[in-house]
Amino acid sequence: MSQALTLRPDRLFSSDTTQRAIAQRLFQHVETLPIISPHGHTDPRWFAYDENFANPTDLLIQPDHYVYRMLYSQGITLDELGIPRSDGSVADVDPREVWRLFANHYHLFRGTPSAYWLNYVFSRVFEIDVRLSGDTADVYYDTINNALATDAFKPRALFERYNIELLATTESPLDELEHHQAILDSGWSGRVITAFRPDPVIDPDFEGFIDNLKSLGEITGLDCLNYTQYLQALRQRRAYFAKMGATSTDHGHPTARTADLSTLEAEQLFNTVTSGAFSKEDAELFRAHMLMEMAGMSLEDGLVMQIHPGAFRNHNARVFEHYGRDKGADIPSATDYVSDLKPLLDRYGNEPNLNIILFTLDETSYSRELGPLAGHYPVLKLGPSWWFHDSPEGMLRFRRSTHEVAGFYNMVGFNDDTRAFLSIPARHDMARRMDCVHLAELVATHRLEEDEAAELAVDLAYNFAKQAYKL
Amino acid sequence: MSQALTLRPDRLFSSDTTQRAIAQRLFQHVETLPIISPHGHTDPRWFAYDENFANPTDLLIQPDHYVYRMLYSQGITLDELGIPRSDGSVADVDPREVWRLFANHYHLFRGTPSAYWLNYVFSRVFEIDVRLSGDTADVYYDTINNALATDAFKPRALFERYNIELLATTESPLDELEHHQAILDSGWSGRVITAFRPDPVIDPDFEGFIDNLKSLGEITGLDCLNYTQYLQALRQRRAYFAKMGATSTDHGHPTARTADLSTLEAEQLFNTVTSGAFSKEDAELFRAHMLMEMAGMSLEDGLVMQIHPGAFRNHNARVFEHYGRDKGADIPSATDYVSDLKPLLDRYGNEPNLNIILFTLDETSYSRELGPLAGHYPVLKLGPSWWFHDSPEGMLRFRRSTHEVAGFYNMVGFNDDTRAFLSIPARHDMARRMDCVHLAELVATHRLEEDEAAELAVDLAYNFAKQAYKL
Amino acid sequence: MSQALTLRPDRLFSSDTTQRAIAQRLFQHVETLPIISPHGHTDPRWFAYDENFANPTDLLIQPDHYVYRMLYSQGITLDELGIPRSDGSVADVDPREVWRLFANHYHLFRGTPSAYWLNYVFSRVFEIDVRLSGDTADVYYDTINNALATDAFKPRALFERYNIELLATTESPLDELEHHQAILDSGWSGRVITAFRPDPVIDPDFEGFIDNLKSLGEITGLDCLNYTQYLQALRQRRAYFAKMGATSTDHGHPTARTADLSTLEAEQLFNTVTSGAFSKEDAELFRAHMLMEMAGMSLEDGLVMQIHPGAFRNHNARVFEHYGRDKGADIPSATDYVSDLKPLLDRYGNEPNLNIILFTLDETSYSRELGPLAGHYPVLKLGPSWWFHDSPEGMLRFRRSTHEVAGFYNMVGFNDDTRAFLSIPARHDMARRMDCVHLAELVATHRLEEDEAAELAVDLAYNFAKQAYKL
Repeated sequence: MSQALTLRPDRLFSSDTTQRAIAQRLFQHVETLPIISPHGHTDPRWFAYDENFANPTDLLIQPDHYVYRMLYSQGITLDELGIPRSDGSVADVDPREVWRLFANHYHLFRGTPSAYWLNYVFSRVFEIDVRLSGDTADVYYDTINNALATDAFKPRALFERYNIELLATTESPLDELEHHQAILDSGWSGRVITAFRPDPVIDPDFEGFIDNLKSLGEITGLDCLNYTQYLQALRQRRAYFAKMGATSTDHGHPTARTADLSTLEAEQLFNTVTSGAFSKEDAELFRAHMLMEMAGMSLEDGLVMQIHPGAFRNHNARVFEHYGRDKGADIPSATDYVSDLKPLLDRYGNEPNLNIILFTLDETSYSRELGPLAGHYPVLKLGPSWWFHDSPEGMLRFRRSTHEVAGFYNMVGFNDDTRAFLSIPARHDMARRMDCVHLAELVATHRLEEDEAAELAVDLAYNFAKQAYKL
Repeated sequence: MSQALTLRPDRLFSSDTTQRAIAQRLFQHVETLPIISPHGHTDPRWFAYDENFANPTDLLIQPDHYVYRMLYSQGITLDELGIPRSDGSVADVDPREVWRLFANHYHLFRGTPSAYWLNYVFSRVFEIDVRLSGDTADVYYDTINNALATDAFKPRALFERYNIELLATTESPLDELEHHQAILDSGWSGRVITAFRPDPVIDPDFEGFIDNLKSLGEITGLDCLNYTQYLQALRQRRAYFAKMGATSTDHGHPTARTADLSTLEAEQLFNTVTSGAFSKEDAELFRAHMLMEMAGMSLEDGLVMQIHPGAFRNHNARVFEHYGRDKGADIPSATDYVSDLKPLLDRYGNEPNLNIILFTLDETSYSRELGPLAGHYPVLKLGPSWWFHDSPEGMLRFRRSTHEVAGFYNMVGFNDDTRAFLSIPARHDMARRMDCVHLAELVATHRLEEDEAAELAVDLAYNFAKQAYKL
Repeated sequence: MSQALTLRPDRLFSSDTTQRAIAQRLFQHVETLPIISPHGHTDPRWFAYDENFANPTDLLIQPDHYVYRMLYSQGITLDELGIPRSDGSVADVDPREVWRLFANHYHLFRGTPSAYWLNYVFSRVFEIDVRLSGDTADVYYDTINNALATDAFKPRALFERYNIELLATTESPLDELEHHQAILDSGWSGRVITAFRPDPVIDPDFEGFIDNLKSLGEITGLDCLNYTQYLQALRQRRAYFAKMGATSTDHGHPTARTADLSTLEAEQLFNTVTSGAFSKEDAELFRAHMLMEMAGMSLEDGLVMQIHPGAFRNHNARVFEHYGRDKGADIPSATDYVSDLKPLLDRYGNEPNLNIILFTLDETSYSRELGPLAGHYPVLKLGPSWWFHDSPEGMLRFRRSTHEVAGFYNMVGFNDDTRAFLSIPARHDMARRMDCVHLAELVATHRLEEDEAAELAVDLAYNFAKQAYKL
């Protein structure tokens, strides 16, 4: 006995009739705006070669750590889900069986943003009208599987149907960007750009750091174990990424720490961290120094700098050992922006031509640190509520805790930051609705006029992202 | 001129008409469910010997540190309230005078959960229909005092009237559990079990630690100043507690720190902390090590492990000196779960047969640490909003900050965690109502279907506690 | 095309009809109560000499760091705004041009408390009925400028029109209080008192610390580089401030740290910090020690002690260098009250005749530390939501996070804490409304009776401030 799946037109809006009516009116201004996705992790191969997706499990479960972390937390093993192991092997599981396992445990997602996104995809993209459960697992599998085999569900077709004006992916400096080149060469009109994410070559704790430097040397023809040439190589790669369309860099350090070292100190530290024998503090200080270098290069080349700090990556040692990084086991930790960013802000905080976008996983910093910083420093803007906080409650907490102190105009609108391509419109739908919920609160309590709110709704959904990321 | 005391049928529900109607419907599913109280601090003697309670002051004020901390904060001394001193003496105060003092200051509790619980007890249990104030102090005292002298208000009668299916108390390993034995021997049908709280013998900073080890030795016939025998003694006591019905252990350390020491390191550290000459760090590391040992023993014997960290116990030096521990002067402090639990999770985080329930007094950890941890690790579940946060606002903050990230199914439902026996139904009433408030919010904004919410309401009120505590 | 500026009678009240009706009724009890402003930073010269304010820019923009920080964050330089430089010079800008720049960027303040306060002043004080924008900049400038030239807009006339019963300013011990003396000598009935803020002479990191001690010596006729005489000088200045009407002291340290040093240790530390060669820790420890001394002196002389910790002052090095302190670049940082206040509370926490009012910029401490502390210690009370949190959302977060744990009666009502004299009624209007919003929430959900809420509304708006500050 399956139950109806319906997307209510008023979903997420307040049940207060005054606020709901305002939110409905505001939402009309933004519902159909094109999608700007200035930061994310989709795979450029999809758009380069436009091949059909393999099957529902391969598309919707196996790449989505939001999904399998929750299943794992309830005792389902990663092998049962067919998650690839770090040695390259995969448990021999039938995609349909994995889907059934997922369907049988779909209640675990009740009230989570994953359920919102998935239901949106099921309903809007695949036009399914019953809820997912053990009973409907096969109907779902077949419906989605059949759709995926058609042209209408190939990556470019979905990109266009999704009304995506721009989509940014994220690549390492070691990436040759051949898929992006293929997109450009193809003559397809969709705009897919990259972003420069140098963690593998500026974080000494990154797996294979030294090998990564050697690869960087090969790509650039420079000796990347020599500090001066190393910096030159980074400049060269940034220029290449910019030429290929990138407008931003991205930095996922454990902390937001920055440091202002002399060239001599920096060079000595570089020699230490490339010697292989370095302390935790050496690694941290080198990352801190390199954020400063990256800011300096951004001032030169105009790339917008994104800082995504504060995740304890790969917290589960056993999962990391057997399945590798990014397996749903990253855990946020407390972050200090006030002291950590001071060296950077002392040097570059007042530059008129530098854009730094701050993100956080530590919500305590919203009103205590990030709002006050962004409401003062010309170079700083606030990224949206991120990752675990990319959710209705997370968005409301972010907005309510920052808009009074940072002001709306020091925000950059929404990032979907996702690997889950199919969910992109669902995520923007949620973000736009929640912005309307927040603005309607302000209007209904006479803290904002409705015409101001309508302007802000459009800014938050569209304009701010284009401006902040120089798109 | 006394004013009416009434418990509104819709108390705590949102005034939004849509949400209130949903909450009313959800509450019908849970209002009369039996009470599962899997963690608390009531006195087993009450149920063992079923004697009448002495008087209103002795029952409702003197054992309740929630009540006298607030009175103390406004300049009323503990002697005026007849709180026993650590030397065993008590100021010579008339219980009726203490009650009058309380009544004259009852306005101090406006808007606090204590007022909610007390008013519920006054209205429902004692059927009083005027508010407590100076004017009604004597009416209250006489009404309650007379009731307490009757059979209907003896502990077992109240236990049955309260529809308590199971009540857990908490005892030290040094407790012989003779009162629990007396309950079992009595043939009474009420189910009162114990829980194993080893702080006095695993925390070197606990008052009388060495003496406690000696007592443990006497009870077990082992030499508890010998590390190997000490561990054996703990195993033996755990087994005895389990035999007596315990299904859980409980740990109230200052932090959540855990450590993975070698047997040799552990033994040396044990020798240090039992020598009497040890540093703060030695004590902290020993507690950290013993949490790891306790987790290992839980894996062996199946006892569910509860971790209640983060209270700075007995913060008021003068009150501690004169009146001893647990006098309303425990203050939460910032807690770090991400690093502190890492050693434990590295070793046991993926065990399918281990249940660890995490609590916190540091609400900043809800969305930053605990939600992400519980939403990934199979061994972890989240206890409810605890102690200072066992309140309408506290519960809402907890639910709103965790359900999206941890998911509802990584929660354990409600704990009343109280010494105040009479307030148990009031506390469960508040918790069930606030869960309905939260679920109604989700339903009214179309984040959850009402049939899903109804299932969750029952799970949160009843099923989750039974499952998580293996009851 | 300019749009109407209107102050809605129901502004800030919930749009929920039940809650709004309750809030309206509660607000009738407090709307017209006199203003008690027990802590702030207005200039006593205004009231001493009662001269006309110069022009709109000089009055409303240039002294208000809330305003120019936001403009600065969006790339407007402090020179463009005519903010004085630390060398005493000022960029040659026309006040009307500055006003136009402000008007053209007024949208930046949408949804901020600054907009609420400014719009209130524009509407209520200057009776302007169109919104501020580039189009209306000149109308605004002329209207305000003309008004300021009249007697009705002189400081004392506004003070009386504003129905201010008492206004406290804040002065350094080095201040001779000649303006306060002039007020007293003038025979004017307005009550303007001072508060004792000794940071310049007890914080070794304060600019000119040694010179400040020398000045303190000159004022008191004591050798303030001698520790005993230094303490005597502070006692003497406190007595003088108290004689001039002060009822409180105020302390703006980077942290809430306190220390209990022996006289010998304190004297040695004093010698170190006055030698000019001292470490960060020396300075911190000296501040910690002096908070203890100040508490001891408060016990002697009865001055209420306010602690405002946790701001990283003058975070922007370049702005500090060129424009000096207090230029909108103070950033909050994480604060620990539980450990930091322990020495002070160990010594004085149970004193019946000492009042210490705690403030915070770190909202994480509301429910975790400050609520529990204030709900236990007799000497502690909680100041209102402060500075960046003096806003509708900030006030709601504060009330919702503290009232259940600290209780309403451990609060001190509202402080406007402002330099912006014209905004004082706007700020109290916001605070009174938000208290009614919060109380209405509690009444509508049956957590409080309406008659109790009405009493509390008056207490929060008026009585608590008078009691806590001994006015």
